[in-house]
Amino acid sequence: MDNLLNSEQLSKNEIEEILQKAESFLNYRGDDLKGKVLAALFYEPSTRTRLSFETAMHRLGGSVISVTDVGASSIAKGESLDDTARVVSRFADVIAVRHPDAGSAHIFADNSEVPVINAGDGAGQHPTQALLDMFTIQKEIGKFDGLKVVMTGDLRYGRCPNSLAYMLANYDVEFVFVSPPELKMKPEVKEFLDEKGIKFEETEDFKEGIKDADVLYCTRIQQERFADSQEYENLKDVYILNKKLVEELCPNAIIMHPLPRVHEISHDVDEMENAKYFKQVEYGVAVRMALLTLLT
Amino acid sequence: MDNLLNSEQLSKNEIEEILQKAESFLNYRGDDLKGKVLAALFYEPSTRTRLSFETAMHRLGGSVISVTDVGASSIAKGESLDDTARVVSRFADVIAVRHPDAGSAHIFADNSEVPVINAGDGAGQHPTQALLDMFTIQKEIGKFDGLKVVMTGDLRYGRCPNSLAYMLANYDVEFVFVSPPELKMKPEVKEFLDEKGIKFEETEDFKEGIKDADVLYCTRIQQERFADSQEYENLKDVYILNKKLVEELCPNAIIMHPLPRVHEISHDVDEMENAKYFKQVEYGVAVRMALLTLLT
Amino acid sequence: MDNLLNSEQLSKNEIEEILQKAESFLNYRGDDLKGKVLAALFYEPSTRTRLSFETAMHRLGGSVISVTDVGASSIAKGESLDDTARVVSRFADVIAVRHPDAGSAHIFADNSEVPVINAGDGAGQHPTQALLDMFTIQKEIGKFDGLKVVMTGDLRYGRCPNSLAYMLANYDVEFVFVSPPELKMKPEVKEFLDEKGIKFEETEDFKEGIKDADVLYCTRIQQERFADSQEYENLKDVYILNKKLVEELCPNAIIMHPLPRVHEISHDVDEMENAKYFKQVEYGVAVRMALLTLLT
Repeated sequence: MDNLLNSEQLSKNEIEEILQKAESFLNYRGDDLKGKVLAALFYEPSTRTRLSFETAMHRLGGSVISVTDVGASSIAKGESLDDTARVVSRFADVIAVRHPDAGSAHIFADNSEVPVINAGDGAGQHPTQALLDMFTIQKEIGKFDGLKVVMTGDLRYGRCPNSLAYMLANYDVEFVFVSPPELKMKPEVKEFLDEKGIKFEETEDFKEGIKDADVLYCTRIQQERFADSQEYENLKDVYILNKKLVEELCPNAIIMHPLPRVHEISHDVDEMENAKYFKQVEYGVAVRMALLTLLT
Repeated sequence: MDNLLNSEQLSKNEIEEILQKAESFLNYRGDDLKGKVLAALFYEPSTRTRLSFETAMHRLGGSVISVTDVGASSIAKGESLDDTARVVSRFADVIAVRHPDAGSAHIFADNSEVPVINAGDGAGQHPTQALLDMFTIQKEIGKFDGLKVVMTGDLRYGRCPNSLAYMLANYDVEFVFVSPPELKMKPEVKEFLDEKGIKFEETEDFKEGIKDADVLYCTRIQQERFADSQEYENLKDVYILNKKLVEELCPNAIIMHPLPRVHEISHDVDEMENAKYFKQVEYGVAVRMALLTLLT
Repeated sequence: MDNLLNSEQLSKNEIEEILQKAESFLNYRGDDLKGKVLAALFYEPSTRTRLSFETAMHRLGGSVISVTDVGASSIAKGESLDDTARVVSRFADVIAVRHPDAGSAHIFADNSEVPVINAGDGAGQHPTQALLDMFTIQKEIGKFDGLKVVMTGDLRYGRCPNSLAYMLANYDVEFVFVSPPELKMKPEVKEFLDEKGIKFEETEDFKEGIKDADVLYCTRIQQERFADSQEYENLKDVYILNKKLVEELCPNAIIMHPLPRVHEISHDVDEMENAKYFKQVEYGVAVRMALLTLLT
């Protein structure tokens, strides 16, 4: 693996190699990457993802150089992404890049002298999130085959549900996509699943959709996606998971969320054994440690 | 000690343990915290405090992850402080948090998996500044009992004077609070001192107030505290310490200031043996090294 | 050497000592500066220079504390540069400072307890860029004496051409300064060269000027330098280097640029053996590693 740019590039074997490596890095601190430098280039804010990468690098004894504000970077002076990639790859041993434009991670990879990890590229993908989601499922359920995976919320613009769907398509899973019509799962993902012979259903009915889930993957619905703010207000109240719903409809589900969570999971769920969204954060560091060692 | 949130939480013994530990860290460089990560979360700007914590961590061989701009953080996406604490405590081994709201450090501590240090919470407290102020007095005078401690400037909104007053109240000291009427020491601090049986005087007369001080703790008066800008202009010129005043009124005082200093200490004081405000910066690193090792 | 503030301060011997040291740091990773802290204070944005310094420090096993946004620093509270230097030098073992005002690095050095490196001070100098430019010429050509060095673009406001000219003036070189009349080389540099007996020509004719160059040092022409935007538009198209021009006019030249590059070197030059502007970035890290070890 030279770069990690999207979920589809990884074979089942590669996914499992990464997850196995991640297992060995839970609570690990070492000098594996001593002398190496990670460049964390965040062209749009993402505190959690940036801190996760930086923590991963530090726990392996490596160093970090970061760019967090576009305003303060050469981009303000009109430098192209190509040139920035050429320059930064003279400093770093590996680059993690978050950028608002889909495809930007590929431009970076094409011009970099060192491996590039896509840390989220606009409406594109977020493959390290997908890997940490996979790791969470493996750690908390222990298998992928036979699972009913329900994804709720914004499946159209969110990078996380589609990146995870591509990755889970390597296994014998069954999807339910629960969203308002405006935010239905991207057509290219559904085509991909069809080709792979993976079953999926789509519904707008939140209660019906989450029933008997093994994995319940919730995402945030953002007001700015709706032309009509009243429509948002109505939906907002429908797509909220609470303790009662979990107990009634999917008592055995693990509940995941890429965070930040706003209203879509009520706080009474936090104390339930089912809630795994903070565990995901912990697992994410181990997964990124695995990737950093595999790529450098 | 699980967290350091305010001055009152520390017993005299705990204060002395920290100061003793700080003594051993003056000019120290080591690997005591190798593999550990400090999260420096600065929800409002404070270059000096942030760099002091980061330096302390680095001198102990540890690593740092930082958030310096709220605009670029998840908070922009509406995440609650609770959730941010839950998330960041999955990355870090200890958290230093600066936040504009009093009480926010407590919210952080309640939701964190790791120790939290209050690095200043709005109109609340700044206990690490108080500890470095204590350390400065110990290093430069050698005792607390019997001292006349004069505090000048903004005693109402400043976090530093009250945090230090609470801590010094463990000793047999005597306070003089010198400030314009708008900026008098907080009532709760005065009640606390009364309960502890610590003597204090209040005055608006700068020259009278600073007379015979052993410790002269100056703070900045901010224009934005005054409705009437003329009133500020008048006061500004009264509450200025200069060399001549020190020589005449308190020739044996050590002069302290939490910095940044603007006009309130004139530059001719800088060269005097009495001036300790840059020494405080140096001592601050040792104190924070002590805290980081005691808490992790 | 206590500080590095400008090009003229360095003797030929000192320059050569730095370049020799840089040679030993190409691709080096070590613990030479373990326990030491670099403060990177960037009062104006300069991603490339900041990341280069930070990378250099990390490759030597040292740590970094950074200030990248003036808005978030004590400066916002009115602290003087003097006081900031006094404070930061209590944290760091060496300071690299970028500031919009010429002379600010000197103010820093006068008030710092530790060595200060000028990382660019407004219309002043950028001596570490000059050293990395020298190192590039040495690595790629192998000598300075006898070279025809052509500088193009903005020679009046750019810090890089003048900082390099001062340094090359230690050798038997010949300059051609190619620029529009508004952007001619600073008079003080030309006086300096006259005193040193270094030959230079000035021309507005781009094609004539670059003929037979051994070193072709291109810089960006910024629109904001022109009162009349049409004048800028005309010039912009004239001062563009492309593959055809290199092949015809200076086939043996090494082509350098301090970056970021916008339109002034067309992308078909990138693939040519002559192009060294990304090599410069690589060499810059080694040069800064040399400086950091020599100064701390």
